[in-house]
Amino acid sequence: MRELGIGLIGTGFMGRAHALAFRNVSAAFELPFTLRLAALADADSIRAQTCATAWGFEQAYGDWQRLIDDPKVNLIAITTPNHLHYPMAMAAIAAGKPVYCEKPLAVNLQQATAMHRAARDAGVVTRVGYNYQHNPIIGLARALIHSGGLGEIISFQGEFSEDFMADPASPWSWRCEAEHAGGALADLGSHLLGMARYLLGDIEAVCADTQTVHRQRPATAGSEEQRRIAVDDQVHALLRFASGARGTFSSSWLKHGYKNHLSFEISGTMGTLAFDQERLNELRLYRVGQDGFQRLLAGPDLPGYAAFSPAPGHQLGYNELKTLEVHELIMAVAGLGAAGTDFEQALAVERLATAIRQAAREQRWVDVREV
Amino acid sequence: MRELGIGLIGTGFMGRAHALAFRNVSAAFELPFTLRLAALADADSIRAQTCATAWGFEQAYGDWQRLIDDPKVNLIAITTPNHLHYPMAMAAIAAGKPVYCEKPLAVNLQQATAMHRAARDAGVVTRVGYNYQHNPIIGLARALIHSGGLGEIISFQGEFSEDFMADPASPWSWRCEAEHAGGALADLGSHLLGMARYLLGDIEAVCADTQTVHRQRPATAGSEEQRRIAVDDQVHALLRFASGARGTFSSSWLKHGYKNHLSFEISGTMGTLAFDQERLNELRLYRVGQDGFQRLLAGPDLPGYAAFSPAPGHQLGYNELKTLEVHELIMAVAGLGAAGTDFEQALAVERLATAIRQAAREQRWVDVREV
Amino acid sequence: MRELGIGLIGTGFMGRAHALAFRNVSAAFELPFTLRLAALADADSIRAQTCATAWGFEQAYGDWQRLIDDPKVNLIAITTPNHLHYPMAMAAIAAGKPVYCEKPLAVNLQQATAMHRAARDAGVVTRVGYNYQHNPIIGLARALIHSGGLGEIISFQGEFSEDFMADPASPWSWRCEAEHAGGALADLGSHLLGMARYLLGDIEAVCADTQTVHRQRPATAGSEEQRRIAVDDQVHALLRFASGARGTFSSSWLKHGYKNHLSFEISGTMGTLAFDQERLNELRLYRVGQDGFQRLLAGPDLPGYAAFSPAPGHQLGYNELKTLEVHELIMAVAGLGAAGTDFEQALAVERLATAIRQAAREQRWVDVREV
Amino acid sequence: MRELGIGLIGTGFMGRAHALAFRNVSAAFELPFTLRLAALADADSIRAQTCATAWGFEQAYGDWQRLIDDPKVNLIAITTPNHLHYPMAMAAIAAGKPVYCEKPLAVNLQQATAMHRAARDAGVVTRVGYNYQHNPIIGLARALIHSGGLGEIISFQGEFSEDFMADPASPWSWRCEAEHAGGALADLGSHLLGMARYLLGDIEAVCADTQTVHRQRPATAGSEEQRRIAVDDQVHALLRFASGARGTFSSSWLKHGYKNHLSFEISGTMGTLAFDQERLNELRLYRVGQDGFQRLLAGPDLPGYAAFSPAPGHQLGYNELKTLEVHELIMAVAGLGAAGTDFEQALAVERLATAIRQAAREQRWVDVREV
Repeated sequence: MRELGIGLIGTGFMGRAHALAFRNVSAAFELPFTLRLAALADADSIRAQTCATAWGFEQAYGDWQRLIDDPKVNLIAITTPNHLHYPMAMAAIAAGKPVYCEKPLAVNLQQATAMHRAARDAGVVTRVGYNYQHNPIIGLARALIHSGGLGEIISFQGEFSEDFMADPASPWSWRCEAEHAGGALADLGSHLLGMARYLLGDIEAVCADTQTVHRQRPATAGSEEQRRIAVDDQVHALLRFASGARGTFSSSWLKHGYKNHLSFEISGTMGTLAFDQERLNELRLYRVGQDGFQRLLAGPDLPGYAAFSPAPGHQLGYNELKTLEVHELIMAVAGLGAAGTDFEQALAVERLATAIRQAAREQRWVDVREV
Repeated sequence: MRELGIGLIGTGFMGRAHALAFRNVSAAFELPFTLRLAALADADSIRAQTCATAWGFEQAYGDWQRLIDDPKVNLIAITTPNHLHYPMAMAAIAAGKPVYCEKPLAVNLQQATAMHRAARDAGVVTRVGYNYQHNPIIGLARALIHSGGLGEIISFQGEFSEDFMADPASPWSWRCEAEHAGGALADLGSHLLGMARYLLGDIEAVCADTQTVHRQRPATAGSEEQRRIAVDDQVHALLRFASGARGTFSSSWLKHGYKNHLSFEISGTMGTLAFDQERLNELRLYRVGQDGFQRLLAGPDLPGYAAFSPAPGHQLGYNELKTLEVHELIMAVAGLGAAGTDFEQALAVERLATAIRQAAREQRWVDVREV
Repeated sequence: MRELGIGLIGTGFMGRAHALAFRNVSAAFELPFTLRLAALADADSIRAQTCATAWGFEQAYGDWQRLIDDPKVNLIAITTPNHLHYPMAMAAIAAGKPVYCEKPLAVNLQQATAMHRAARDAGVVTRVGYNYQHNPIIGLARALIHSGGLGEIISFQGEFSEDFMADPASPWSWRCEAEHAGGALADLGSHLLGMARYLLGDIEAVCADTQTVHRQRPATAGSEEQRRIAVDDQVHALLRFASGARGTFSSSWLKHGYKNHLSFEISGTMGTLAFDQERLNELRLYRVGQDGFQRLLAGPDLPGYAAFSPAPGHQLGYNELKTLEVHELIMAVAGLGAAGTDFEQALAVERLATAIRQAAREQRWVDVREV
Repeated sequence: MRELGIGLIGTGFMGRAHALAFRNVSAAFELPFTLRLAALADADSIRAQTCATAWGFEQAYGDWQRLIDDPKVNLIAITTPNHLHYPMAMAAIAAGKPVYCEKPLAVNLQQATAMHRAARDAGVVTRVGYNYQHNPIIGLARALIHSGGLGEIISFQGEFSEDFMADPASPWSWRCEAEHAGGALADLGSHLLGMARYLLGDIEAVCADTQTVHRQRPATAGSEEQRRIAVDDQVHALLRFASGARGTFSSSWLKHGYKNHLSFEISGTMGTLAFDQERLNELRLYRVGQDGFQRLLAGPDLPGYAAFSPAPGHQLGYNELKTLEVHELIMAVAGLGAAGTDFEQALAVERLATAIRQAAREQRWVDVREV
C-alpha cells in the first residue's frame, strides 16, 4: 500500500488536534494509504522538535517552506494564525501537494479567491477545517433533509455563541484585528454559515447588524495599555436561501454561559430538527405523526460513529470529529470521496461573511452575488 | 366595600379563560372591590344563557350593546374575534367604562390609534390581554434586567412558534384574513413583540422577511373548496432597540413540534437569561461567576406566585397568568396600580407589527417612527 | 338541578386550594349539581369569617361540628392538620355526608382502618386528596400501561424529594412528630406510594431503610430551644408488586435543589415512561421502534386538560389538579364515577407506609399483608 | 527516556479502544516513558496480524502466552472475554509484568481473590478498566464530595441501564452465562458499584432483588434453537455505606430507551449533584445558596480535560476516558501515581456484586464482610 506522508504546520490547539486525528485515523478506519507522520513545522524550532517527538513525527522544521519542499511530505496541514493561511497554501499548491487548511480560509476575499483559483488550476485536492460538519449526527440531519424527511425546508434559526471574550478584561489578540479575519463572525459565525450551506445549500441574500460592544481591551492580560477594537463582538442577520427557506443567524463571543453553542433549528413542512454542539451526540427531532420531540443519541448505525464505537450512547468527542474530517480528506486525496469542504466551498463561506459585513455597514439587504 | 360589576363579551376559549380568572381573583387576592359577575354576552343568546349559568354570571345578553349599557356593569371585557374589538371598545369608552380587550388591539393601525386616543381623552382605564407578561418568573426576569443584574443588555433572540397551522389541510379561518389581523405575526408574534418591549423597552427599527408557505387552504375542514391565503405563515426579523441592544425575531404557526414556544434569550455584559413558555415556571439564568446555567423554578418568593401557592415548584398554569392579569386590571381600575399593557402600549405593539410587514414588503430597514 | 352544599374545614394552604377548586369546577365542567359554597369553618372564627367573605362562602363557623350539622352542607372537605382528620371524618360519616379528606388519611393505621370501615358501613362516598393522580398526563401514563402499550411492566424507580427541611435551622413543627403522621415518608412518600399503586397496582412486599439526619431542630424559627426529632428525614425502599414488577422507592425532605420532585420511571418489555412533577405537563416516553425518548406535552386530547384549555402546551397548574380531583369527587357523589382515591385505597397506602417503617425497624423484608 | 512496550490481548470493541488509547496518550500527555506498541495477540492469528498493521503494533501473535513472554512487552493489556482474565492475568503476574485488565476482574470471587493476592505478592502494578471513573467531571464530583462541598453525604440513588438485551429476540451470548460473569449486574451494574465506591467509599450492607425476565433466548440471531437463561436481566438494591449514607441501586439491560445510562444523584447536607453518562461532559449541581440546579460543562480547568482541548464545552468522548485511564496506568507503572482501580479495588466490587446476588437469593440484608 502506498504511503502518504503528512506535513503539519503549527503546534497550537489546532496543531495538536490535527496530530491526534492523524494518529487516530489509521486505527479507526481502513485507509487506502499507509499514513506516515513525516514532518512537523513551527516557527519556534525547539518547540517543533519537542512536539514532533511527543506526537510521533519523524522530522521537525523551524521553516515551513522546508516542510513543504520535503519530498517525504505528500500532504500539507495548516493550523497557523489566519494571515499565514494564504502564503502557506499557495506554496503547497505550487508544490502540487494537497492542502488541508484551518478555517477561515483567508483573511479577505481576495486571498480566498486566489487560493481557490490556484488550487483549481493546479488540480490539487483541498479541504478546510469545518470539522463540525463531520459529526455523524449532522450527517443524519443532512440525510433527513435531503431525503425529504422533513418535507420542504422553510426555516432556519441558527446561532453560534460563546463567552470567551465576554469579560471586557479579556485581552486583545490577533482575533481582534480585521486584517487577521478577526471578530465573532469570522471566528465563530463562519462555522455556522458553513453548516447552514452544508445542510440547506446556497444563501442568496443577507441583511445584518454587527456591533462592537467593548471598544477597547488590554493589550495583554492585566495590562494598563488599552487597544482600540473595531471587529464585531456580535452579529445578527437574516438569511434568504436559494431554496426559498428563510432564517435568522446570530453569533457572539460575548454571550455569557455558552461555551460552544453552535446551534440551529431547521423546520420543514413535515418536521423540525434541532441541534446544539454543546451536546454534540444528540439531535432533537419531530416528524409529522410523533407526539413530541424525540431526543436521538448517536450510535453505530450512523456512518462514522461505528468507526469509534460499536455501542450507541457512548459518545464521540470533539477530537473525533477532527479524525472524521481527516478520514474524508484522505479519501479525497485517494480519489475515493468528495465529502468535506474544499476551497470552493470555503470561499463561498467567506463571500457570505463579507456580504454580511457589507449589509451591516450599508444597512440594507445585500445580494451575495454582488460581493 | 364597593362592588365592581363585570361584563364579559364572548364565550369562546378566551371567554372562558376570562370567566375563570374573574372567579379566581377574589380567592387569590385581597381586592379593593367586591367583584360581581354581572353580565355575559354572546351573539348566540342561548349560548350566552347557558354559559352565564355555568360560569356564575347574573345576566345573559344576546346583544353586546345592552351589556355595555347595563348599569350593573362597571367594566367591559372583550374576547370576540379581532374585528369586533374596535366597535365594542369604542362603545365601552363612550359609556365611560374601563375596557379589558384581548389582543391584538385592533385589525389595523388606524383603529388601534383611534381606540387609544378615545380612551385617553375619556380618561378610561384600559388593558389588553398580553397575559404572558404577568408570569411571576417574567417579573423576575424584568427585575433582573432593570436592576442591572445582567449588566448592559446587548442582545435578544426571540421566537414564538406553534404548529397548529402546519398541516396544509388545516382549514381557512378568519385568522387567515389580513383584514381580521390574521397571520402568524399578529396571532403569535405580537405576544413576543409585547414581551420584548416589556423587558427591553422601545424598538426603533426593524428589517424583516415574511412568507406565505401554504397559499391555499380548505374553506372548512375536509372541504374540497380551497381559499387563497395571503397572510404570513412565518416571519423573521432583525430588531434594533432604543437602548442599543440588537436582536432577532421569528414567529411561525407552521413549526412542527411546538405548541406554545414563546421563547427568548437575553444577554447582557454580565449574564444571560432564557425562557420558554412551554416550561412557563422556569428560567435559565447565567450570571458572571456561575459555573453554568441555573434552572430556576418559580416559587412564593416571586410576587404573584404566592397568591396561588405557598410552596415552590408547584407550578402555575396558563389560566393563572390570566388571573394575575385580571388582578392588575382591577388594581388599575381602583387607581392602585399601573402594571399591565394599556391601549397605548398595545398600540406600540401594533405599530411594530405594521413596521415589520412594511419592512418585509419593501425589503429594507424601517424606522418604526415612520409608520 | 339539585344543589350540592359544600362545607370546608380549614383555611390554610390546602383550605384555599380547595376553595379555588370548588369555585373553578363549575366553570370548567358541566356538573350534575349546582354547587353552593355553603360554609367554611376555622377554629379561629374571625379568620373563618374573613376567608368566607373572600372566597365566597355563605356562612362561617368557629366550630367544625356545627358546619357538619348544618343542613345546607351536603359534603365535608377536611384540610386541617393530620390528627384532626379522624374525628372530623368520623363525625361527617355519622352525619351521613360524603367526606373529602386531605392526605394522609389518618395518623395511624388503627384510625385509618376505623375510618374506612365506618364509611363503608355507612355507605358514604369518600375521597382523599392524592391530587397528583388527577393530572391528565398521568392519566395518559396509566392508559398506556393498562392497554399494554409498554408491554409487561417490569420495573419502577420512584422518588419524591423536596428540600424544605434541608436546612437544620428549619424549625420543628407537627410534621416532625410521629403521632401526627410526621416525617418525609408520610408527608411526601405517601403521594408516591399512592401513585405507584394507581399506576401498577398492589405492592406485596417491601424492604427499607429510614434515617433521621437532623436529630434536633429549633422549637420555632430562630429559637435557642431545641426539640428532639425522631421521624424520618429520608427513606429508601425496595418494592415488590403483585404483578411481578420490582422497584426502588426514595423519599426525602432534605434533598437540596428539589422543590416538588415526585418522579418515576416505569419500564416494560415494550417501552419506558418517565415523569417529574416539577414539569407536570410533560411525559418522557420511549416505545419500541422509536429512535429516542419523546417529550410529550399535555394537550386537549387528554381528558381533563380540555376542561381548562383547548390549546396544547398551555399547561395546567397545581391548583387545576385539585379542580380535577374535585370534579371526580362530585361525579362520585352523584353516582356517576368511581375515579379517585377513596378511604379504602388511602388505607392501603397507609398500610404500605406502615410496612416500610416496620421493614426499616426490623431490617428485613415485610409482607404487606402481615401489617 | 525508557521505553515501555505495550502488549495487547484481544481485538474486539475493547481491544480497539485500548489501541486508540495507547496511540493517543503520548500526544495528549507528557509521559515518563516512550511508549512502544510492541505486540498484539488474538486467537485468530490472521486477525491479529491485520489489526497489528492497522493499529501500529510491531508484532502479532496467535498465542497470548507468547505475547506475555515477549521481552519487548513490558505491560499486558487484557480485553478478552471474562473467563480468560484469570489465566492471562496470572501468567502476566507470574512474568512480573504490570497488568491492565478489563472489568469484571474475573468470573467469580475465588478467581478475583487469587488474582489480587498474586499481584500483591508479586508487587506487580495492576489496573482494571473502570474507565468511567476517569472522566474529568467525575473527578470534579469526587473533589466536591471529599472537600465537604456538599456537606455530609446522606444519600445515593444510582442506576445503570441500557436496552441492548430488551428485545427477547436478542440472542444468547456468553454474557448470558453465570459462569462467565454474565448478567446485567456484572456487565453494567459493576461499573456503578465501582463508581459508588470511588465517590463515597465502602459499602457495608446490601439488600436486593434480581430478576430474569426473558427466560430463554435464541442460540444465535434468528435461530429456532432456544437456550435457557438464568442470569439477571435487572437488579434493584438498597445500599448502606460505611460513611452512614444510604441509597438505592438499579441496573438493567432491558430498559428501553437507554443506551449508556450510568447515572446517579448524590445528596449531602449542603448540596446535591447528579450525573448521567449519556451526557458525560455535564454535571448538575445544586449547593446551598443557589437558586436552582446548575449545569456545568467540562472544561480545561478540570485535570485531564485540558490534555485534549484548551476550550470548554468542546466535549470529550468515550474513547478519551480510556486514554485518561491509560495515562493513570502508565503513571502508576512509573511509580508516579496511585489513581485508578487496582485489583484490590476491583475485588471489592466483585465482593459487592456477590453480596447483592446472595441478598437477592436469600431475600435478606447481607453484610458485605460475610461474603
